[in-house]
Amino acid sequence: MTIDAKRLRHDLETLASFGADGDGGVSRPSFSIADGEARAWLRARCDEAGLSYHEDVAGNIFMRLDGTDPDAAAVWTGSHLDSVPNGGRLDGALGVIAGLEVVRSLAERGGSLTRPVEAVSFADEEGGYLGFLGSKAVAPGLSFDDIRGAVGRDGRRLISVMTEAGFAPERIHEAQIAPASVHAFVEMHIEQGVVLEDAGVDVGVVSSIVGVGRCAIEFKGRPDHAGTTPMHLRRDAMRGAAALLTQVGDLPGRVGAPNAVITCGRLDLHPDAYNIVPGRVWLGFDIRDQDRSAIEAIEAALIDLAQDAARPHDLEVMHHHESLTDPTPLDERIAKITREAADEVGASWRDMPSGAGHDAQVVAPVLPTGMVFVPSVDGRSHSPLEHTAWEDLATGTSVLYGVVEHLATTGLP
Amino acid sequence: MTIDAKRLRHDLETLASFGADGDGGVSRPSFSIADGEARAWLRARCDEAGLSYHEDVAGNIFMRLDGTDPDAAAVWTGSHLDSVPNGGRLDGALGVIAGLEVVRSLAERGGSLTRPVEAVSFADEEGGYLGFLGSKAVAPGLSFDDIRGAVGRDGRRLISVMTEAGFAPERIHEAQIAPASVHAFVEMHIEQGVVLEDAGVDVGVVSSIVGVGRCAIEFKGRPDHAGTTPMHLRRDAMRGAAALLTQVGDLPGRVGAPNAVITCGRLDLHPDAYNIVPGRVWLGFDIRDQDRSAIEAIEAALIDLAQDAARPHDLEVMHHHESLTDPTPLDERIAKITREAADEVGASWRDMPSGAGHDAQVVAPVLPTGMVFVPSVDGRSHSPLEHTAWEDLATGTSVLYGVVEHLATTGLP
Repeated sequence: MTIDAKRLRHDLETLASFGADGDGGVSRPSFSIADGEARAWLRARCDEAGLSYHEDVAGNIFMRLDGTDPDAAAVWTGSHLDSVPNGGRLDGALGVIAGLEVVRSLAERGGSLTRPVEAVSFADEEGGYLGFLGSKAVAPGLSFDDIRGAVGRDGRRLISVMTEAGFAPERIHEAQIAPASVHAFVEMHIEQGVVLEDAGVDVGVVSSIVGVGRCAIEFKGRPDHAGTTPMHLRRDAMRGAAALLTQVGDLPGRVGAPNAVITCGRLDLHPDAYNIVPGRVWLGFDIRDQDRSAIEAIEAALIDLAQDAARPHDLEVMHHHESLTDPTPLDERIAKITREAADEVGASWRDMPSGAGHDAQVVAPVLPTGMVFVPSVDGRSHSPLEHTAWEDLATGTSVLYGVVEHLATTGLP
Repeated sequence: MTIDAKRLRHDLETLASFGADGDGGVSRPSFSIADGEARAWLRARCDEAGLSYHEDVAGNIFMRLDGTDPDAAAVWTGSHLDSVPNGGRLDGALGVIAGLEVVRSLAERGGSLTRPVEAVSFADEEGGYLGFLGSKAVAPGLSFDDIRGAVGRDGRRLISVMTEAGFAPERIHEAQIAPASVHAFVEMHIEQGVVLEDAGVDVGVVSSIVGVGRCAIEFKGRPDHAGTTPMHLRRDAMRGAAALLTQVGDLPGRVGAPNAVITCGRLDLHPDAYNIVPGRVWLGFDIRDQDRSAIEAIEAALIDLAQDAARPHDLEVMHHHESLTDPTPLDERIAKITREAADEVGASWRDMPSGAGHDAQVVAPVLPTGMVFVPSVDGRSHSPLEHTAWEDLATGTSVLYGVVEHLATTGLP
């Protein structure tokens, strides 16, 4: 094996100790004390391995092995160090440690790579303060005005915590890179779903990152007294909401987008009292697909269904379109190199979209970008239960090694 | 007409100015500054009319016209002065002012009543601090231990606000009355529903106050990532909740209690995020009927339905029984006197249960108790939109006059 599976495991376990929760989870937001400990530990790993360690003004980390051509664009591989509150040990961390393991293994192998290779960690991917902060700062770039208003889950200002952690928010524009300075970026990540596990496949070759539509449907009825209003005289907003929610699962199939997903993950009702018939119910929907028009079709069909659901209960319906981020296609050349690298080590693979957002989607419009998924046991993520079999992590990292080596030598066609 | 409709209206309008909100509503919790202003104004009305004004240690008000027999038990009529936050001008206030108008009119008429008559206002009916505080203190009685822990919507201790308002919470047991000292209690109130309005009837003769069951149903699934979990692999707690909620409206009919009502007025979902499939949905139900066994049957059927709703989505169901207050029958002798008094003034009437709770249900186990309802326009209550036509208020108060006069002279059979 080209990489050291034992060292990979040891490093993932050590990293999980920075920000470890009492209950087996990890809470390591960017710019926290735990984040600082993880950075110091990574720097020591680089010293040990003879790699250079660099942090930019935004808090991104670059762990570098020089190539033979001093003018060549770098090959990047990585993800993010930060976790959600009480998250797992792999989301983000895997991509950083697998990247470090790949760069370290390439350094140990000796021989010559044309291009420099850098294991990268992007700051604040999870949105403790801003979301995708580090990757946005790198490409397409951020200005101080973009970040000065950001306040985190902890109620503190991003610019205060960045400054205290030793970074330079007022110079965040300096983190932006010249696109020509990076040859390609490959992010390895856990799938956070059950597609690979269900199919018994080792590696996912990510074709695109889905678009995300957000919208809300609100039902308005009349907030009557729950004791004095006979059932047949009610305009109960909850009845409309319930009728709609029983049909939402069929929407992807109905618009001919069977792989699309739609979720009602938020609900608000008023006045939220035992003794008052709900006068208003607000439902928040998340719709995802690889195809923007499918997201739009589902949102349109949702509105129609809501109106049908409202009619028998004499309710008003309001629709609020909130946002629609476009699907992001990834680089097919990198996907092809990834399939070949998987075949090389005897790993099974399948092409698949990513249903979750990643730093890869932020930099993809600027840099040739690919992603490699490994299976998630039971699909668990953003949870202490997040897990991937150690063999799967080693296999995935071997595939990543092949991809990075190819990019650093042969390069993109 | 036996009562002065113009004075009744004027007094209701004046009372509504104590605690008037900017937006047409009334916010007058017991023991507030506005409550104190209302009390001072009532005292002045009693002085004017030659009635005695008395407050007990609990903050209850008694506005009294003596009878000819100094040993006779008193006839009480009244309700409560306090309102919910941003409530209307009639809930509670009507019963107090109509009671005052009746007592005042009886005083003006001259002639002799055997029994003393008192217009009563019970403190804190709406639960600003405790709920039914005043009526509970009177009958069945409260001890200091019952109230010392009570904290209000305003975050303040009941015993502090009572003391500041000049009452004596540490002596609350002294408010308890000897049952023999009160001949009967009649409460006039707005219906807070649409039954009288829909039927075009002037007056409701309340037969009983419904029992109230409270329970919760909780669905537990799995909080998966909304982007990475295909629709068919989800254990979405919301799907079970929605399936249940579409069927709840049929439950009263299904258990043979067509007049029962069931309401899901509260809902909580976790983790309440756009991008996470709901792992847990908690539903709070309120079930009311005149018959305790109907409430129990609906709760049992609800649990069965919930289990059916959970099965197709592989969810767990938990049921939490919270409380069941018994239905309270009111005194049929008073109901009969009320029907006769309505006929006397040419008012149409119908027998009906009360779907809402009232001071009447608290004292009914101890004192012979009746209630008279007047129509609520559009059923609105606990809202600035609370309204009853002035003619309906005058008609209802005339009926109340007849009832009180009968009780104070002939008395209960």
